[in-house]
Amino acid sequence: MTDTNTQVRLAKRPQGLPGDDVFDVVEEPVGEPGDGEVLLRTRYVSLDPAMRGWMNEGRSYIPPVGIGEVMRASVVGEVLASRKDGVEVGQHVVAMTGVQELAVTDLTGGYVVDGDAAPLPTYLGTLGMTGMTAYFGLTEVGRPKEGDTIVVSGAAGATGGAVVQIAKNLGCRVVGIAGGADKCAFVTGELGADACLDYKADGLKARLREATPDRVDVYFDNVGGEILDLVLLRLARGARVALCGAISQYNAGAEAKGPANYMQLLINRASMTGFVVFDYADRYADATGIMAGWLKEGKMVAKEDVVTGGVRAFSQALRGLFEGANTGKQVLQVA
Amino acid sequence: MTDTNTQVRLAKRPQGLPGDDVFDVVEEPVGEPGDGEVLLRTRYVSLDPAMRGWMNEGRSYIPPVGIGEVMRASVVGEVLASRKDGVEVGQHVVAMTGVQELAVTDLTGGYVVDGDAAPLPTYLGTLGMTGMTAYFGLTEVGRPKEGDTIVVSGAAGATGGAVVQIAKNLGCRVVGIAGGADKCAFVTGELGADACLDYKADGLKARLREATPDRVDVYFDNVGGEILDLVLLRLARGARVALCGAISQYNAGAEAKGPANYMQLLINRASMTGFVVFDYADRYADATGIMAGWLKEGKMVAKEDVVTGGVRAFSQALRGLFEGANTGKQVLQVA
Repeated sequence: MTDTNTQVRLAKRPQGLPGDDVFDVVEEPVGEPGDGEVLLRTRYVSLDPAMRGWMNEGRSYIPPVGIGEVMRASVVGEVLASRKDGVEVGQHVVAMTGVQELAVTDLTGGYVVDGDAAPLPTYLGTLGMTGMTAYFGLTEVGRPKEGDTIVVSGAAGATGGAVVQIAKNLGCRVVGIAGGADKCAFVTGELGADACLDYKADGLKARLREATPDRVDVYFDNVGGEILDLVLLRLARGARVALCGAISQYNAGAEAKGPANYMQLLINRASMTGFVVFDYADRYADATGIMAGWLKEGKMVAKEDVVTGGVRAFSQALRGLFEGANTGKQVLQVA
Repeated sequence: MTDTNTQVRLAKRPQGLPGDDVFDVVEEPVGEPGDGEVLLRTRYVSLDPAMRGWMNEGRSYIPPVGIGEVMRASVVGEVLASRKDGVEVGQHVVAMTGVQELAVTDLTGGYVVDGDAAPLPTYLGTLGMTGMTAYFGLTEVGRPKEGDTIVVSGAAGATGGAVVQIAKNLGCRVVGIAGGADKCAFVTGELGADACLDYKADGLKARLREATPDRVDVYFDNVGGEILDLVLLRLARGARVALCGAISQYNAGAEAKGPANYMQLLINRASMTGFVVFDYADRYADATGIMAGWLKEGKMVAKEDVVTGGVRAFSQALRGLFEGANTGKQVLQVA
């Protein structure tokens, strides 16, 4: 194989929102798969807020992307050539091969998916890491009981939108928080939340109080910042805050703000707990089965926001995530 | 009885550190105990950082002290007259009768203590709410395992000092944080911590790193602020932060700062959990028994810092707490 592979490589560590200059787009020939390897053509690249953290120096739950390395990303790819048992040409796989058009990989951590059972982008969304993050964060950290009040920020986003629906399926009262009337209409309409609060409109504090008359048993936090601080003021006794992300803070650098109202955790005997989805890898299959069932029964909808333009559009699409441009799971179509 | 009772009443809600003008000292005759009541002479008043919170308006784990009410406090008192079955003149009791020289009470929530088995101030410290707070916060929220590294702030204070000793008795490696070389010498010397870091000296971050080579499994936080932020950077995977207090922030008002490094909870799959000692009331007797045993065996020392001057010295003594004046449990001697 001598096909040209266009790759997006990390050129330097960003300050704040990553500009185009943070990445180099390079072209180079792709190699042939060795024994136990496959050659993939990337079909869709997953766009995740967590990517911003992967670009920073320093200790985290996985090592940072190195300067000069292909930007890390989950993708759905099509198998163009296979020297790996059990994987055939034409099949689709989910793999962590990064932002590039082609990749040779041994598929460590990857797996074959059924492109006929669900649209390919859904394997990066509801049936992928995004769905797993929502499922395990809510059920294992949030531990909702039927009738509990769940508040979810980033509710029109990929993870938040899945949390809304999982919580409804578990019999909870669900209040979403999202940016703008259109997103809120989506959260209550298509996703079925009991209420959705537009954080861009005035009076969020008062509206949150009205929407949570029995206070908040579980807060699934995707955003951090001022919204986290407001929700802390509404915690019920024994509440659980599941820390999934803090998209409002990822580009803040040294200006990052902690939750000034954290002592509400004491007053309410509440907890704030972080989690990393990879820790639940041995149970992904169970959760995927449950969610695939919900999708089939119409008890869950998978919403993807497909950006076109190939790998060269990656940098702009990533910024879109932080600007709140997406509704549902954002993926980049590559081929 | 027509004895004059000197009382300290809350005159207004303080801003910042409470000045003398926040309290009114009034004298009035004390009544006679009715059926089921006792008359107490206050011997010692407990001085607690939590008192600052009780003076604020707003929802908390107990209602605020009302303007014009006697300032809430735990005391050890001597029974001067009793019309309550099972309580005799001359006995000592612990009760929440507040900052006043005399009190008529039905002893709800109070109990008789044995003044011969331990010095009276110890019943406000190691064998009182302070000890209970340390014991249940550490064992129920911190959940240390033998060999875990425990960090405790306010380690020369009442609660922190008890945590140091309980954690050592449970087989943990204990690192205290306290203000000044003398306090640190007390924490490692008399209390037996493996190390103690003076937060007033330079380079706390680097010294904390050195003192916690295996990172931090449990952080028992009495202080909040910058020290909490530094310890968050040293959390081990699955670490537990027990939120007991935030003495550095109680007088900060709107300037209160949240922990900017709280996303370390995510990276480390760690939790930060608040607790209120009153929730463990049905198990106080068990914990008191364990700690009395340790005191008797010399595996624990009870250190009290007795301030004199009677109830009129209350305001100044309370400020001393926030200025870090005390080593061990601070109590005000009244009679």
